[in-house]
Amino acid sequence: MSKVLVFGHKNPDTDTITSAIVYAYLKQQLGVDAEAVRLGEVNNETQYALDKFGFEAPRLIGNVAEEANEVILVDHNERQQSADGVEQVKVTEVIDHHRIANFETSDPLYYRAEPVGCTATILNKIFKENNIEIPANIAGLMLSAIVSDTLLFKSPTCTEQDVQAGNELAEKAGVDAADYGLAMLKAGADLSDKSLEDLLSLDAKEFTFGDVKAVVAQVNAVDVNDVLNRKEELVSLLNKNVEDNNLNLFFFVVTDILNNDSTAVVVGSAAQAAAASFGKELVNDLVDLPGVVSRKKQIVPVLTEGL
Amino acid sequence: MSKVLVFGHKNPDTDTITSAIVYAYLKQQLGVDAEAVRLGEVNNETQYALDKFGFEAPRLIGNVAEEANEVILVDHNERQQSADGVEQVKVTEVIDHHRIANFETSDPLYYRAEPVGCTATILNKIFKENNIEIPANIAGLMLSAIVSDTLLFKSPTCTEQDVQAGNELAEKAGVDAADYGLAMLKAGADLSDKSLEDLLSLDAKEFTFGDVKAVVAQVNAVDVNDVLNRKEELVSLLNKNVEDNNLNLFFFVVTDILNNDSTAVVVGSAAQAAAASFGKELVNDLVDLPGVVSRKKQIVPVLTEGL
Repeated sequence: MSKVLVFGHKNPDTDTITSAIVYAYLKQQLGVDAEAVRLGEVNNETQYALDKFGFEAPRLIGNVAEEANEVILVDHNERQQSADGVEQVKVTEVIDHHRIANFETSDPLYYRAEPVGCTATILNKIFKENNIEIPANIAGLMLSAIVSDTLLFKSPTCTEQDVQAGNELAEKAGVDAADYGLAMLKAGADLSDKSLEDLLSLDAKEFTFGDVKAVVAQVNAVDVNDVLNRKEELVSLLNKNVEDNNLNLFFFVVTDILNNDSTAVVVGSAAQAAAASFGKELVNDLVDLPGVVSRKKQIVPVLTEGL
Repeated sequence: MSKVLVFGHKNPDTDTITSAIVYAYLKQQLGVDAEAVRLGEVNNETQYALDKFGFEAPRLIGNVAEEANEVILVDHNERQQSADGVEQVKVTEVIDHHRIANFETSDPLYYRAEPVGCTATILNKIFKENNIEIPANIAGLMLSAIVSDTLLFKSPTCTEQDVQAGNELAEKAGVDAADYGLAMLKAGADLSDKSLEDLLSLDAKEFTFGDVKAVVAQVNAVDVNDVLNRKEELVSLLNKNVEDNNLNLFFFVVTDILNNDSTAVVVGSAAQAAAASFGKELVNDLVDLPGVVSRKKQIVPVLTEGL
């Protein structure tokens, strides 16, 4: 059997990188020649988790059709978020926790999606179903993914299943979930050494809201002023991005991971309408979003409804 | 919580009808107000299974958007095989063993597909994962589905998992899998009382092979002469169907369930090319297909390749 590549989405986050490593490990235990790979740069938060539990980042790949005939997708399914060339290879499995769209196969496959906060929570079940023990360092990666996707169990995307899996995995990994989790989030949220261009590309996803072509980007911060002190420069950069990519909206969210609030920097022709979707006025290109931490649950649905 | 409807595909077969009943039962045990419904007439084979294990056929529905806000799909996912109005309701779960195509959601959902021979084989796992006992009569329905989809474990779509599930379920149901299975298949394969129009609609699926618009229909028979004795009349009917629906091919397969062979009656402008796909000549509108029993594994791929 030729090698099967396992990977998550572009602009990889901690769940995407670690779930690729973890699921490749699980498949190897089942006798499959699986290799985890990645589609982009590893961010600081993910690097912290990899270092903590003694893993190297997976190999970076370009066009997947030049690498393999069969692939397994984790943490995503939509074609535009996946590897270049994915339509030329056979997707044999998908493990995911997002909606299904822009996805089609010609053959039956193993597809496992559940409406939980994190791919690792589903992987935790699959280990059990296959009676495979989770080693301590693998459990550490899985805990890292859950902490990252649920902001240490505080995001509204977090389910009871994520909390339970997180606690089980922390025990297996031999770490305190709250202490380790906060340290990992802080490692990823230290933005003081980041250029604004870096921030824009860290976690930006494209959406269409009615006629509005938009990008909604999100960064986590320990101190939101690391970003907001550079607001004028950021607004220029966002406006340039809107112009270059014919966008109607760039909705840039800075989330305070200690207080679980967000502030958005919003530009584009639909900026006022976007603010109004939250019942707010745009003031100096800013909108305060108290209590908002989840793009999936608290931002995208509001913009979908409002625009 | 309002009622969730559970249903399989149009032109329902035994797996579709019984999996709707079985999964609705499982969801009810989990506290969900679920009701199994159906999208078409119950065939003789399915009726035999329902009678044997003491079930009524589920309620027939038309446009699903007039019935419910939330639905669960079993044994299918493609929009054109699903209920009218399915795009207007929320699909909260899918349990299936087919390829994924023409399927999209706006929210995360529970999607469980596995490349096995039958939906019931997957349901058998889900019962275990939820620690829910399978009552004897429910086990009987699940066994019926596996026997039907795998032609009593003889189809090339049958996996080791289907065999194991079938044997487990036969024991729970208190029946001999081979004896009961053959009796059920025979009940469905008695075509002597069927009109040719009935036969055409029993299990016909539409496909596109390159530029060829085709219907591939399949009927199981104990005695293929029940059908082939009426060949001239059947050919006229197929030609009319080709003309009325602008088809290039009608590939009508009669499968001998005792000997596990098939004969196809083939008409349309692409009929010779279809026969050639199997390395055969079309003789009097007929092609012999020794050893062929599975449309999914042995017919559709050959026509896809050949046409």
